[in-house]
Amino acid sequence: MTTSTPTPPSSPRSTVRRLPERGRYDRATIDAILDEAFLCHVGLVHEGSPVVIPTLHALIGDDLVLHVSPASRLLRSGRAQEVCVTVTLVDGFVLARSTFHHSMNYRSVVVFGRPEVVPGHEKAAVLDAMVDKLAPGRTEHVRPMHDKEIRGTVVLRLPLDEASAKVRTGGPSDDAEDYDLPVWAGVVPVHTVFGAPVVDPDATVDVPTPEHVTRFRPATTGR
Amino acid sequence: MTTSTPTPPSSPRSTVRRLPERGRYDRATIDAILDEAFLCHVGLVHEGSPVVIPTLHALIGDDLVLHVSPASRLLRSGRAQEVCVTVTLVDGFVLARSTFHHSMNYRSVVVFGRPEVVPGHEKAAVLDAMVDKLAPGRTEHVRPMHDKEIRGTVVLRLPLDEASAKVRTGGPSDDAEDYDLPVWAGVVPVHTVFGAPVVDPDATVDVPTPEHVTRFRPATTGR
Repeated sequence: MTTSTPTPPSSPRSTVRRLPERGRYDRATIDAILDEAFLCHVGLVHEGSPVVIPTLHALIGDDLVLHVSPASRLLRSGRAQEVCVTVTLVDGFVLARSTFHHSMNYRSVVVFGRPEVVPGHEKAAVLDAMVDKLAPGRTEHVRPMHDKEIRGTVVLRLPLDEASAKVRTGGPSDDAEDYDLPVWAGVVPVHTVFGAPVVDPDATVDVPTPEHVTRFRPATTGR
Repeated sequence: MTTSTPTPPSSPRSTVRRLPERGRYDRATIDAILDEAFLCHVGLVHEGSPVVIPTLHALIGDDLVLHVSPASRLLRSGRAQEVCVTVTLVDGFVLARSTFHHSMNYRSVVVFGRPEVVPGHEKAAVLDAMVDKLAPGRTEHVRPMHDKEIRGTVVLRLPLDEASAKVRTGGPSDDAEDYDLPVWAGVVPVHTVFGAPVVDPDATVDVPTPEHVTRFRPATTGR
């Protein structure tokens, strides 16, 4: 999807208005952010009021797939309702020479739309894909879903028809006259890292730690 | 605020319904999560549709303070509108013996309410507090806000009247019969870390890196 001319926004509300130079509309940028992140925040309107629910997501093909608790407000509010899903990766704190120009380096994606419920016969494959996204290959090791578990789980999918990304990179943008101030300015990078695996203290079987755990790293380059 | 009996929820919609045993309503728990996190997701209703905007926050006294772009939809949609602010810290991936019981350790806070605009004469102090929360002591070094900058910045504050937290900790909760499966189960911890500071390549003055940068660590124990 990478082209030499920028991809235009897909709809008016998917157009980045505040600092429009930070807007990106190409699938390569959007996909990379959705793949690297694992947590999204789903906004919906419940009885006229906004509700924001954090949940796990995975980009599977052209759909953003959302794992939803069966009793969640997300579903009680009705089927095929409108949502806004926002995913944000913080890359650094931008320390400027003035209070005003302090900023954050980040990559975010916003997707608007009406998600559909993944039908029963597709659900197991989609849930497997979500687990394998977090820990590639793990579903070959674990006990597959029982039918009852599949029925009790709700998975939504939202096409990326109305998606946009917003990206800030680089150092501070200070006022010209502030560069001579004796103030340290620059960026403090922020990273998400995975610690040493902690085996379940309730484990009754001694199992060697598999590579998908010792080298735990969610898949980010599956496309 | 820590008491021996659990603090009850402040309102029906601030009551955790899904997995209620994970609900927490005491200010000590809520404050610690809001302090450790720096990014929140603000949900609002714009022309009937949900919108979720990521932004920086700081807990200052009893208020959740939100930094808002002056041209943001958050404000264009009207003053004193209802919002839902959600803050989520991911602590680990819970790898269970079955696909179904895979989970996430997390701490989240949800705050409902109608934020008020911080008035002009208080704004500079609040913005300084936000910068000093990220990099304690930094505002002593940098150029303070000009009046024009203060006027161009919008800061909202939301009291914690309707706030709740939700916390999952510990290892997997597998079905009794699955513990004998030869599957590695446990938790992969997730951490947010700060990298080595990167000095602004456009710097024209050689300034030693101050301690609030070399030992960068947002304040999390200010209360």
